[in-house]
Amino acid sequence: MPALTSEDVDFEQRVRESFALQGAMQTLGAELSRIEPGAVDISLAWAQGLTQQHGFLHAGMVSTALDSACGYAGLTQMPASAAVLTIEFKINLLAPAKGQRFRMEGRVIKPGRTITVTEGRAYAIDNGQEKLIATMGCTLMAVQGRAGLSD
Amino acid sequence: MPALTSEDVDFEQRVRESFALQGAMQTLGAELSRIEPGAVDISLAWAQGLTQQHGFLHAGMVSTALDSACGYAGLTQMPASAAVLTIEFKINLLAPAKGQRFRMEGRVIKPGRTITVTEGRAYAIDNGQEKLIATMGCTLMAVQGRAGLSD
Amino acid sequence: MPALTSEDVDFEQRVRESFALQGAMQTLGAELSRIEPGAVDISLAWAQGLTQQHGFLHAGMVSTALDSACGYAGLTQMPASAAVLTIEFKINLLAPAKGQRFRMEGRVIKPGRTITVTEGRAYAIDNGQEKLIATMGCTLMAVQGRAGLSD
Amino acid sequence: MPALTSEDVDFEQRVRESFALQGAMQTLGAELSRIEPGAVDISLAWAQGLTQQHGFLHAGMVSTALDSACGYAGLTQMPASAAVLTIEFKINLLAPAKGQRFRMEGRVIKPGRTITVTEGRAYAIDNGQEKLIATMGCTLMAVQGRAGLSD
Repeated sequence: MPALTSEDVDFEQRVRESFALQGAMQTLGAELSRIEPGAVDISLAWAQGLTQQHGFLHAGMVSTALDSACGYAGLTQMPASAAVLTIEFKINLLAPAKGQRFRMEGRVIKPGRTITVTEGRAYAIDNGQEKLIATMGCTLMAVQGRAGLSD
Repeated sequence: MPALTSEDVDFEQRVRESFALQGAMQTLGAELSRIEPGAVDISLAWAQGLTQQHGFLHAGMVSTALDSACGYAGLTQMPASAAVLTIEFKINLLAPAKGQRFRMEGRVIKPGRTITVTEGRAYAIDNGQEKLIATMGCTLMAVQGRAGLSD
Repeated sequence: MPALTSEDVDFEQRVRESFALQGAMQTLGAELSRIEPGAVDISLAWAQGLTQQHGFLHAGMVSTALDSACGYAGLTQMPASAAVLTIEFKINLLAPAKGQRFRMEGRVIKPGRTITVTEGRAYAIDNGQEKLIATMGCTLMAVQGRAGLSD
Repeated sequence: MPALTSEDVDFEQRVRESFALQGAMQTLGAELSRIEPGAVDISLAWAQGLTQQHGFLHAGMVSTALDSACGYAGLTQMPASAAVLTIEFKINLLAPAKGQRFRMEGRVIKPGRTITVTEGRAYAIDNGQEKLIATMGCTLMAVQGRAGLSD
């Protein structure tokens, strides 16, 4: 990734460039539906390749989209030179992920120089009704350059 | 799924049947590499469609395989009439998921009539070296029939 | 605890009776500062006996008050015959628990017949300024009678 | 705390000095029953002031001892100049904390320059029988000096 000089202007570009590199997002058929400082939404449609045994979205696939939404929400508030790593996340599944479309929200709760804490919410849209199906707490670390990525 | 009468004999069959229904496991190219009472392993190979922006396995894809490993570890010790739901899980990413192959272990820590607690460990095999890359704590609920699956 | 017949009227009484039985709440010098359906606040003052090595509130003591706030928030929406058990919780410490007083909020996100999911937020009041210091996700189980409490 | 020159020799002293400063450990009547590199145990006896409404140890008090055990396990492997902060922890309560005595184990799973990941296990000793009652995953951050403690 090229070094960007104006992070206030370019956080959206940094998010889009990184998102495009995630093979997992293509597998999910996911798209960025909101990019604002501290807030990123990811949307996707139901697909057979994302299901658990009852035909609903697999909890892991819900967490894949939520993790990216949280990670990119954090990235919007990091310096342009930083890479973002997920240290840990926890997800509560509130209801089966039953629907035609899904929207995952990532929000920064506490930005930090090293550690950023985010929260995610996943919604299923089933026959036009939106329902909260999962909540996530996700802790990120900002890594300067790619130093932390090779250990 | 047909009702099975001898759960001691048939837990492996129940796990395999359910696993085959998970579209997510096919997307991951995942296979069941161990099925014992309270212990299930899932193995998979690196693929571009599972990656994050640095080309390593996406944390969400690691959690997808770990969640299934934990869920099926729990299912081996549930009655044949029960379905298994993940209530919540938490994953710590210890190191980048860098490798050619990956093995996810699910283990039952505390079985229960309603609530079963499991732990997962994910290993990357990189140039023949196995390395612990993630740990998961995962809470399951046994649901009789499919009653709990439609609310 | 006596069986109560009108849970809509008496949830406050049930919470107060149970709270009074928690020796831990007396040790914390904690009081119930809000009891509404799905929402309970617990307040307490700094004390030397609650500290970690830097003189701030110990993360475990923050979690003790948050866990009770979440548990009682859940209890307000359970039948009068139910006891409430914490299955698991996760806490993120956002900032040192530095202050003269603390307020812990427990809120129900998803009530359920068996499983109730709650969220907690802890605030420190330091020289009159309130600051978010911790977030919790907490999963509860309703147990009929005291059956589940003896295994 | 004085700067120590030989961390290999002095990690035990650093743990004991910090532990003695935790008012919360005195309130718990807790003692350090094991201090080895990457492994710390904390033991305590049941007391009325530590209970929830059924007379068992409050989940928050279990987590207080586990958090300290995990934190000090991490501290044994940090430089003498570092302070340790808990970023987050998650606890699963496997069984009521019913017993006369309790032992909390903290173990380092993955040490790191900035982030250290630990696991904890809590055991109740009830009439001479030891029983696993809780598991914890706990993420620590090493902070040089006291810089990170004042923000």
